[in-house]
Amino acid sequence: MSDPITAPALDFSNDPFARIPLVTPLNAAQMQTVGVPDGWHYGLADRVRFHELDALNHVNNVAYFRWFESIRIPFFAHYHVSSYTDDDPQVVLATNYARYFKPMHLGDNYVIATRCKSFRNTSFVMDYGVYVQGQLMCGSESVIVTLDQDGVTKRKLRDETVAAFMRDGAENAG
Amino acid sequence: MSDPITAPALDFSNDPFARIPLVTPLNAAQMQTVGVPDGWHYGLADRVRFHELDALNHVNNVAYFRWFESIRIPFFAHYHVSSYTDDDPQVVLATNYARYFKPMHLGDNYVIATRCKSFRNTSFVMDYGVYVQGQLMCGSESVIVTLDQDGVTKRKLRDETVAAFMRDGAENAG
Amino acid sequence: MSDPITAPALDFSNDPFARIPLVTPLNAAQMQTVGVPDGWHYGLADRVRFHELDALNHVNNVAYFRWFESIRIPFFAHYHVSSYTDDDPQVVLATNYARYFKPMHLGDNYVIATRCKSFRNTSFVMDYGVYVQGQLMCGSESVIVTLDQDGVTKRKLRDETVAAFMRDGAENAG
Amino acid sequence: MSDPITAPALDFSNDPFARIPLVTPLNAAQMQTVGVPDGWHYGLADRVRFHELDALNHVNNVAYFRWFESIRIPFFAHYHVSSYTDDDPQVVLATNYARYFKPMHLGDNYVIATRCKSFRNTSFVMDYGVYVQGQLMCGSESVIVTLDQDGVTKRKLRDETVAAFMRDGAENAG
Repeated sequence: MSDPITAPALDFSNDPFARIPLVTPLNAAQMQTVGVPDGWHYGLADRVRFHELDALNHVNNVAYFRWFESIRIPFFAHYHVSSYTDDDPQVVLATNYARYFKPMHLGDNYVIATRCKSFRNTSFVMDYGVYVQGQLMCGSESVIVTLDQDGVTKRKLRDETVAAFMRDGAENAG
Repeated sequence: MSDPITAPALDFSNDPFARIPLVTPLNAAQMQTVGVPDGWHYGLADRVRFHELDALNHVNNVAYFRWFESIRIPFFAHYHVSSYTDDDPQVVLATNYARYFKPMHLGDNYVIATRCKSFRNTSFVMDYGVYVQGQLMCGSESVIVTLDQDGVTKRKLRDETVAAFMRDGAENAG
Repeated sequence: MSDPITAPALDFSNDPFARIPLVTPLNAAQMQTVGVPDGWHYGLADRVRFHELDALNHVNNVAYFRWFESIRIPFFAHYHVSSYTDDDPQVVLATNYARYFKPMHLGDNYVIATRCKSFRNTSFVMDYGVYVQGQLMCGSESVIVTLDQDGVTKRKLRDETVAAFMRDGAENAG
Repeated sequence: MSDPITAPALDFSNDPFARIPLVTPLNAAQMQTVGVPDGWHYGLADRVRFHELDALNHVNNVAYFRWFESIRIPFFAHYHVSSYTDDDPQVVLATNYARYFKPMHLGDNYVIATRCKSFRNTSFVMDYGVYVQGQLMCGSESVIVTLDQDGVTKRKLRDETVAAFMRDGAENAG
């Protein structure tokens, strides 16, 4: 056994994951170094934890929705949709959908990528993909609605948000 | 708003966290760059997610125990206690204890550090600390017992495990 | 304050929930006494816990999927789809979908109802509804595939499962 | 297979759990019918769900702390410690401790019992036990501190809270 005091953390020298940070927003170029296909501009890398497994010994179906939430919140801030402060719109999650392609296991390094797929004046559709070594393990979609702080009146998306969505290739479904 | 396509992930240039990986085992030197005190030899850095908050808007008391589990499993492998394979001992968590010092919030970067505090022939005590900018937010302790695969007979700790515990400063309470 | 030693649990005398058990499979008649509409034949009643709330102080979007799983497992046993024993098919959750209609809060009593909506030879669609006082708070759907224990070969639904699905009104989409 | 439309929920005629409600506060007499020993005056019965298991196929160590929280919140209301409204003290969980005696499995019916073990002017110790058929599966203790809404000034326990704690047998450690 290597000396736990002086040893480097782990040897990932052949693993491209060694060169990208986990749980830190990633851009397209960073994601592509670990096999995520073109077309995604915002992502997070992470590693499967024990508590995300269920009694069948693979990642539980529900854990994926926690991952999508964990990227959705910083995505909202980064694209100026909302930072959950007073002036910001209320963002309401109207729907959640996931399609599971392959099981995931303890210690898997993965990337969650997300983007706006299409938008209207006061709502938009988010796409999500979970990738392991370039393979899509789970695809997901959710509909987001933006409201005023009264929780009733629809609030228009900010111009800068719409511009950023369009730069990423989102469809204007207005 | 910066261009979400070409922008670097985020600017952490003044943040020492920018130079250490999240969710990857850290050694003492790495942890000390983000303020973790001397005496810890194994840690993980991570960032508080939305789902770890409760309705009081800080990290829920239960989330900390998930963090301690998330470091305990790779610690067991790294110190050759058990990798949950056929020949390995059964490791049984006998107790869990946590003392909460300060609340934690969304987006906080933290380090979970762990070590063996003391050991006997077939059991040991683990210590845990959660640090934010050098401050101890939560301290924890758990008692671990090692058994044969029959789940009854006590199993001695491996010599290499004991040696590594002692190098880290654990007390032989045999 | 009433004497906590001798007092009855709580006074629910005007609450129809006082007369139905929580976390115990319910039939159509039982569910209808708490406002669940006709057409559901299998349900569970439960009460929102603190850990199911998020920092916005309502039930988190992810918690609903845990609820659907918590009814799906006994539903599989009750309809003889699978009890996760050796001879049983592997049941694979292929998709998950939820539409959120109204927020839910701490202490809300609710019913989760589920049924088979339609089936083919080796797969079926499950419907779910979460009801509070007769109002649909969340609707959901998931696609289930049944495989042999090799995890590859498709396994036909049992005759008794198909018969029970049809009695409940499921569509044969064969 | 019984007809899922008309069948009663399940036959629990030999199971004393059939006569007590789940997830509803229970008094001492109710708990004793399912084997909980004398000395507990407030409890909740519930049933282990799939999502509470981990990859080792028993209830995960962390799930117990969620259970203790799930009873602590209504206990605080019932004993007038706090209902989390404006005038109420802030209740701060200072420590959490659990000792695990026996593993629990899917579908186990259990009772969580709690009580105040001892109290001072502005803090108290809570005891918890998880019982299955009269056996203690897990024992737990936590220290609670009550503060003013400023989050700093210590707030005295209400007289009625102290009186109720003493009726239950708590020690005045003032």
